[in-house]
Amino acid sequence: MDVFIEPIGKLINEFSKLPGVGKKTAQRYAYRIIGMNDSEAKAFAESILECKRKVRYCKVCGNFTEDEVCAICKSRDNSTICVVKEPKDVIAMEKLHEFKGVYHVLHGVISPMDGIGPNDIRIKELLSRVSDGCVQEVIMATNPDVEGEATAMYVAKILKPLGVKVTRLAHGIPIGSELEYTDEVTLSRALSERKLI
Amino acid sequence: MDVFIEPIGKLINEFSKLPGVGKKTAQRYAYRIIGMNDSEAKAFAESILECKRKVRYCKVCGNFTEDEVCAICKSRDNSTICVVKEPKDVIAMEKLHEFKGVYHVLHGVISPMDGIGPNDIRIKELLSRVSDGCVQEVIMATNPDVEGEATAMYVAKILKPLGVKVTRLAHGIPIGSELEYTDEVTLSRALSERKLI
Repeated sequence: MDVFIEPIGKLINEFSKLPGVGKKTAQRYAYRIIGMNDSEAKAFAESILECKRKVRYCKVCGNFTEDEVCAICKSRDNSTICVVKEPKDVIAMEKLHEFKGVYHVLHGVISPMDGIGPNDIRIKELLSRVSDGCVQEVIMATNPDVEGEATAMYVAKILKPLGVKVTRLAHGIPIGSELEYTDEVTLSRALSERKLI
Repeated sequence: MDVFIEPIGKLINEFSKLPGVGKKTAQRYAYRIIGMNDSEAKAFAESILECKRKVRYCKVCGNFTEDEVCAICKSRDNSTICVVKEPKDVIAMEKLHEFKGVYHVLHGVISPMDGIGPNDIRIKELLSRVSDGCVQEVIMATNPDVEGEATAMYVAKILKPLGVKVTRLAHGIPIGSELEYTDEVTLSRALSERKLI
């Protein structure tokens, strides 16, 4: 006889599919669900289904949206495009409430090790947006790792002939951190990109 | 405009209700759900509903079951009852594959601070099981904290007149730990309950 009865075992198994959730955590989550009243549990299950049913990709920028074109693409200054790897990077940028332009979600980065080339991510779509002519600046906001850097360089190379300004988020020492604990690559980058004060 | 579109915001909110899950973790979980294909997400939602629909309490021991009486109560030696606070404690015991008796889940412990008295947990039901006469030993396996100890003492006091043996899980230094790092209460308990070798 298994330690868990079947419906609980199944639910634990489902929760284990979430990122960073092991058997023990999944068990806690499952017990919380059992402890909910019927309408709470129904609302939980329904919100999973609703999310899958309603959320799709904006046909312009590739971000999550409920409509064909997302609210950001519809209402904001489309002369500046911020290029990010994933939809969650858009959230990180939006939380600043500073950037007034639009986004382009690549849904990945170039990574030969994983067999992901330029044609596997949404670079073609970016190219066609820029070709339209009203774009003045493309800000490359891919992560500062090998794949993110390579992708930024690649995109810059193919966009420059179109006469658009391509920029990259600044790298350097994070605000509030200490020099002593800054890793060498970051410190070296901060030194080589030092600015006149 | 909110940072998240509505269905995603709602799902993040639902995930935040799980124990120990903050906004950031809930966001990761929600994005994982969106990344699932339709049938995976459906299976997830369905397993939540199925768990709520099928799981109920065994009318004998109070543990989770799909039937009226759980598989443990149906098939095992009912002369020994192990009394625990919650269904998850049954899981902990069952993982040992050593205990051959049955369980009694109190669904709480006596805690005057929280206004929980003997009548608020399943002590009456335990008393009536023991009164049936075939029970020889009741093992108190409530947690070794103030409430767990108090509950064990209380139950022992009301069961002893019925002529049943009431025992308590041993307390002492955990196997594999070091004397140096054992807390004082545990060490003092281990000393006073030392055994002849």
